Parts: sequence; structure tokens; C-alpha cells
Amino acid sequence: MTPKTLNDTEQLNWLRLSRTEGVGPITFRQLLRRYGTCAQALKVLPELSSKGGRAKPLTPPSAQSIEKECAALKKRGGQFLFLGTPDYPAALAAIEDAPPVLAVLGHPHLLHQKIIGIVGARNASLNGRKMAESLARDLGQAGFTIASGLARGIDTAAHTNSLTSGTIAVVAGGVDVIYPEENRALYDKITEAGCIVSEQPMGLEPRAQLFPRRNRIISGLSLGVLVVEAAHKSGSLITARMALEQGREVFAVPGSPMDPRANGTNDLIRQGAILTECAQDILDNIGKGPQGLCEPHAFPLEPLLPPADEAQVEAGRLKILENLSTCPVPVDELVRSCQLSLPVVLTVLLELELAGRLDRQPGQQVALIG
Amino acid sequence: MTPKTLNDTEQLNWLRLSRTEGVGPITFRQLLRRYGTCAQALKVLPELSSKGGRAKPLTPPSAQSIEKECAALKKRGGQFLFLGTPDYPAALAAIEDAPPVLAVLGHPHLLHQKIIGIVGARNASLNGRKMAESLARDLGQAGFTIASGLARGIDTAAHTNSLTSGTIAVVAGGVDVIYPEENRALYDKITEAGCIVSEQPMGLEPRAQLFPRRNRIISGLSLGVLVVEAAHKSGSLITARMALEQGREVFAVPGSPMDPRANGTNDLIRQGAILTECAQDILDNIGKGPQGLCEPHAFPLEPLLPPADEAQVEAGRLKILENLSTCPVPVDELVRSCQLSLPVVLTVLLELELAGRLDRQPGQQVALIG
Repeated sequence: MTPKTLNDTEQLNWLRLSRTEGVGPITFRQLLRRYGTCAQALKVLPELSSKGGRAKPLTPPSAQSIEKECAALKKRGGQFLFLGTPDYPAALAAIEDAPPVLAVLGHPHLLHQKIIGIVGARNASLNGRKMAESLARDLGQAGFTIASGLARGIDTAAHTNSLTSGTIAVVAGGVDVIYPEENRALYDKITEAGCIVSEQPMGLEPRAQLFPRRNRIISGLSLGVLVVEAAHKSGSLITARMALEQGREVFAVPGSPMDPRANGTNDLIRQGAILTECAQDILDNIGKGPQGLCEPHAFPLEPLLPPADEAQVEAGRLKILENLSTCPVPVDELVRSCQLSLPVVLTVLLELELAGRLDRQPGQQVALIG
Repeated sequence: MTPKTLNDTEQLNWLRLSRTEGVGPITFRQLLRRYGTCAQALKVLPELSSKGGRAKPLTPPSAQSIEKECAALKKRGGQFLFLGTPDYPAALAAIEDAPPVLAVLGHPHLLHQKIIGIVGARNASLNGRKMAESLARDLGQAGFTIASGLARGIDTAAHTNSLTSGTIAVVAGGVDVIYPEENRALYDKITEAGCIVSEQPMGLEPRAQLFPRRNRIISGLSLGVLVVEAAHKSGSLITARMALEQGREVFAVPGSPMDPRANGTNDLIRQGAILTECAQDILDNIGKGPQGLCEPHAFPLEPLLPPADEAQVEAGRLKILENLSTCPVPVDELVRSCQLSLPVVLTVLLELELAGRLDRQPGQQVALIG
């Protein structure tokens, strides 16, 4: 069960399952762990969600709609990369909530280079943009590919100055949706010389809640993330936090305390990010991170579970619910306190998750949604 | 031999010895350690320097010239503070090369408050001066006295905004010499409301090599030193280094890498200084330093040595010289390798020092001057 490639049917099912409402990247992995294949998971999905308490059972998108998306991506010269296959970027595969599938336009080989994420304020200062420009250029010359988010300000400066050396734009909506509109020309150049990446379906317009999810991909692709200008509570700080959670290095450009656009980066430095004035500060500190990021990643991470006894699932459902609350508990603790088998507990958790009643949190923890 | 006060004659001798050319703060202490009193040290000084190889024996300043300086200081309402007496600031007494005597104008009680040094660029930016102003004001309100160097830029901003809460100007020349001239009005205000301090004789004009020596007094008086703007290789970084050597906390205000005036402070942060955006960053981290800084400091630090046998000194001189080079060696290692008594070795080292042939270095090390 370590698929190296997926055949057409498997790809179709993989896309259907991962595109199902309520099936996030972690749920996707749990379903595979419990049911072995996407085909089997798709089969049990409606029933599972009903048992979890969902009024209208979950329905995956039709094979037809997925085929349509595949054709649209192919027409634009794009392709899908599936988690667990050799084409999927190894650094990204290493994160807990790696996207089951990525849509890619342009040159996917860039995803296998040594990547540094550069993020920062959309309303960047002239000096901030200059910093991003020179850092992107110098890192490019040092052999790094740059990942960023195609936003105004710092992102734009970073992409523009890494077009020839290697640039990756991770977008929050569909890979074919240009946002912001003013970056249309840049988007076209990146499609030609670089790489556009998204975990979302083609055609999807970006929404506010998609940006933090996008940010985890920028950091997940990267050995380290550089934050150039960032105010308190800005999106770039979310990317930095995710980088830390993913075990990646965080770099930050300092600035005057009088400039609100430096408050976030100064805070990061106070918390241990590496103070960065030039590319050398990054080169001196990169690649000392976790080993194995550049190794192709075996999938699934978790071994396939033995089947759960249906009678035990029926009998255990209430007990598990009683042991859950809005306060997160580790799954293994839940297994111990309920005195039920792991397959039984995971099945019930999947039911609740698919019914939209359970939230997965970092560190293998789960909580009821209040 | 822990003098609490000095009588007039002792003060006179103390000033004569400390004002003798070639007798630095550490040599001063070694002379007292070896000869017990300044009177005795003054007596042997010419002979010691001759034996060390000095062509023209050292001569201390005349009692008359010292009496003249005392009168001049008294006339301006000033006073001398002698190392080892209760009036001498305890934090400064704790440093290895504490000045044997300080001349003070204004309010010496400020020297016994909790002190923060604020230093930085003379050619400070408007924003840098604003930072120094608000930090000095807020630290003053939090009960701290500010020490700085009366220079243009950051120093001026720091003094101006701590006049009412407590400000100390440590000057590189004589306590009565106003430098820079443009700060005459500020100097007058500090004399009235604050405190002016110098280890140099009255009337001495500041020279380049006196500024680093002055800087060690700013940091030596302080629990911590804040650097607001500083270019690479600037004097403020010397103050920061001295603060570290003295076991004091170092704080630095970050700035954009595009601003050369922030390169020094950013470097300090990279090396472990506490990133400082506001007074709270200092308040959160001060007073966690070495204990005892606020305890009155006993003097001399080193116990009086037994007298050295003259014959052994004569016999040992060559051996000690042979064991010395321009590469520093610890004194205790020298004692061991020469197999001579400590009083003998220290006597010969004093001879060489007073002849201008020996350099004392941090960590009780000595080296021949090349």
C-alpha cells in the first residue's frame, strides 16, 4: 500500500474524495487509513456522515464534474500531483495536513528544488519591496527557488525578481483564478517561467478563510520562510507560525519600532526568528533543519488499520461522545479512557468529523465543535 | 584595610597616585595590593619604573597641583568620590577597572539609583532621536535614572528627556570641560538637575582615546545599556561590548537593514542583545542580572600581599621577562611556570607596567607591549 502512481480511475476517485465538502487533508488520510482506497471510502462516506449525525448525507462530487476539471487543467497544460507519488514535493508531503492533491501550472520540477518562502505586507513600503527584491534575487543566484503568494507588495517583489532563477506562486483559489487582477501580467509570466500551485478546484474564487490554508502550503514547500514586512496580527505571521509548526526555519527582516509594518517581524525576532539583513543570513542558517525533507515521501504515513467490528462501533458511539468536549484531547488518550479498539474509535471520530461535529487540532488532538 | 573614608592626606595621595601618568585603574589597585597605601606606593614609584627599564623615572603630580584641582572642583560645588568608600557607586565599583576616583558635579545621589545607560549615534535620525526621547521618558517614569555621554544625537535626546526624573552625563574630558560646545545649555541644566561625572582631571580636553574609557563608565554605572542607533564599528558598540564584559544587560532598538544607522543595533540583536521597541521590553528584562550590584563594595578587592624579598625580585626579573611575550598569559600561569612567589612576580609586573612595557588584559592576563 505505497502507491507509486495512480491509474486513471484511482486518480478520479482520489480527486472526488479530496474534493468532497467536509473532507479535509487529515480526514482524507484517516479515511484511507481506515478503508484502504478512495473507492471504498467514497462508498461508505454517506453512511458514515449520517451515523455521525448529519441531516443530509455527504455526497462527493460526480465523476463527470471531476472529469471536466481534469480536462480544463490539461487544456491549460497543467497537471495534478498526488500525495504519495514521486511527483509530489517531498517537503510538503512531510506536513501533517499535506494537501491530498495539488493542481500545477507551469514547471512542476521547481517544486523539487530547494525552496525559500518569502512573504510580507501587501501595503509594503518602498524599502520593504527593495529588501524583498534584493533578497529574492540573491537567493535565486545562490540556487534557491522562491515561493510566495502572488499578492501585492512583498509577494510581487519576490516573484518579479525570481522569474529567471525559479519562482512558485501558491494561490488561495483555483490555479486558473488570477488574484489580484492587477497581477495578471505577473501571473502570465510565472505560468511561463515558473510554477502556479493550488490545492483548490479549478475556477474557485479565493475567500478569506482560504488564505491561511494557502499559507501552510507556502511554508510546507519551503526549507524556511522569510518575512519581510509584517504588522501585528497579519497573515504573514500566520505563515511564520505554520513554518514553525512544520519544523521549518523562520527568518525576519527587522525594522524601526516607529514603523508599524515592522512590529510583526520584530516580534518574530524576539521569539527566536533569525534576524535577516541579507541573503547570507539565510544561507548561513538554512539546511540545518530536519533531515529527510528532500527524500521522496512514502504514503500513507499511517499503516492501514484492521476493520472495525460494526457491533462495537454501535456500542461505543455514545461512550466516545461522552468522553469528548470542546476542549481538545489526544486521540490515544481517548482510546485509553474509552477502553475501545483504535479502529472503533477512529471510525466514530470519522463519522463525527464528516458530520461537521468534530475538529482536528495539532498534535493528534480532537475536539467537538461548540 | 577596608577604608570607609579617607582623610585629607589620604585623599591627596590617592589623587596623586591615580593621576600619575602610566598608573591606570588596574595598576593602581595592584600598587595598593602590593604596598598597602598610596603614600607608600608613591614613594616606591620612581624606583619601580626605573627597574622596569624606564629611562626617566615616573614622577607623580605635585601635591600643589592636586590641591589646586581640589579647590577648583570645590569652587564649582563638586566633589570627588573614592573607590572603596560608601559614596562611590556600587555598580561601578564592581568592574575590574573601576576608576580609583570620580569627579562629580551636581547631585551625586543619582549615582546610587537604578541606572540604565542610553547610547547611540551622534548623527541620529529624527526617528532615532524620538525613540531615545520616549524611552528615556518612560524609563524615568518607571523609576530609572539615565546615564549617557552628553554627545549630539541620541545622548542629547536621552538627557533632555530625563532631566526631571534623573540624568547622569559621563564626560570623556574633565568634568568642567563642555563638549560638544553646542550642548552648553544642556550641560548647565544637567549640572543643576542631574549629575556630571568624569574620571579625568579638571580642565582636561577630551581626546579620541578617552571616549572608550568613558564608555566603560557609562556601562559600569548601569544595570543595562540600551543602544538606539549605531552603525557598524561605532563607539556605541564599544559601550555594548563593555556592558557585556561587565555582566550588564544589553538592549538594542532594531531598524531597517537599508538604514546604516541600524546595522550595529541589528548586529547586537543577532548576537543576543534584547530587541527593544519600548520601555516595557527593558523593564521585563532588567534586574535579573548579577546580584550584589547594589551592595556597597568593599575595597580593596584583593587582599594585601606579604612583602616581596628584594633579592628574589632581583633574581627573578630576567626569568619573568623570558616567560612573557606579546601574546597574553594569565598571571597565575606565569607564577607557576616561573616557580616564584606571587609577591615577587607582581612586583616585577608592576615595574614593567610602570615602565610602559607591559599591558594588562581582561581575565588577569598580561602581555609585553610589542
